[in-house]
Amino acid sequence: MVQTEKPEKIILGVDPGTRFMGWGIVRKTGKNLEIMDMGVLKLNSVANPWQKLETIYNEISTILMKYTPDEMAIEGPFYGEDAQAMLKLGRAQGAAIIAAIKRSVPVFEYQPLRIKQAVTGNGRSSKEQVAGMVMALLKLKEMPEKLDITDALAVAICHANQDGKTVSKGKKGNSWDQFLKENPGRIR
Amino acid sequence: MVQTEKPEKIILGVDPGTRFMGWGIVRKTGKNLEIMDMGVLKLNSVANPWQKLETIYNEISTILMKYTPDEMAIEGPFYGEDAQAMLKLGRAQGAAIIAAIKRSVPVFEYQPLRIKQAVTGNGRSSKEQVAGMVMALLKLKEMPEKLDITDALAVAICHANQDGKTVSKGKKGNSWDQFLKENPGRIR
Repeated sequence: MVQTEKPEKIILGVDPGTRFMGWGIVRKTGKNLEIMDMGVLKLNSVANPWQKLETIYNEISTILMKYTPDEMAIEGPFYGEDAQAMLKLGRAQGAAIIAAIKRSVPVFEYQPLRIKQAVTGNGRSSKEQVAGMVMALLKLKEMPEKLDITDALAVAICHANQDGKTVSKGKKGNSWDQFLKENPGRIR
Repeated sequence: MVQTEKPEKIILGVDPGTRFMGWGIVRKTGKNLEIMDMGVLKLNSVANPWQKLETIYNEISTILMKYTPDEMAIEGPFYGEDAQAMLKLGRAQGAAIIAAIKRSVPVFEYQPLRIKQAVTGNGRSSKEQVAGMVMALLKLKEMPEKLDITDALAVAICHANQDGKTVSKGKKGNSWDQFLKENPGRIR
């Protein structure tokens, strides 16, 4: 009897903010999801805006090197905020996205409503309700330090569930151009 | 008689947009300014938003490697645009800024009003008036292809003129931390 290796995929979820940037690593094996690690970048203590961007880039790069995720999923923004806040948020996201793109890690983006729907079944859930469901789905025994972390895990779960087919580790390391050819229009 | 080497500084000016990103390299020697090169990244033909960020990062990196500027100056945004446009702009700027920070090239930011004041003496000048003055100051014989280029040269000129003291090439290559210690609060 031939034992076939289970296809697995490692996903980095990021909730990119300018004060706190939550992140979480989830491994999908078949239909099973398990947590590998999670944390939050505390950017509120970094006053210089350039240093903040450098910190984001360096920290996300370190996480990518440590866990070599196959894909990165980020939470898109609410658009209700003021223009200046959105510009700052965009810069912070740009720093995180470039860290992934440089390593040929494909990036996927999901709007908050869609993430909530995917995790709790209700797009209007509170952050706390999302956190509760994330804890249940990933069998976390304690509430993480910040809701930014559970939000990051939520986008990773959302991406894991949206994606019908699992991608074998062998697909990792494809060039960005190749990925684009294979996955036209995969911005959701 | 001892001949002292003239202090000189090379500045990369960038007008970061999501459709066109103008850039220009200016060399300041004493009070003299001369143009080294200029161009525009045509991003409007890049449909995929992640590929757009990668293009910005790669192209700015190439320019930084080729001309090894001492400093980068970018044009800050108008805040009148809609939130979604600002987020996209922020991401594009983040990609350009990370390219500089990764090479320990300090980044300076100037608001459009201040750039216009510095170049034409009038903060309400049109882009065309700014372009005319840029052509005169840098002795350009022909109008550049796009106003994004003259805007980029304008921010380089603004930075060259704001900075009272010239910085010798020897200061290049300082670490980001060292730069921050020496230049607290240099976000203008």
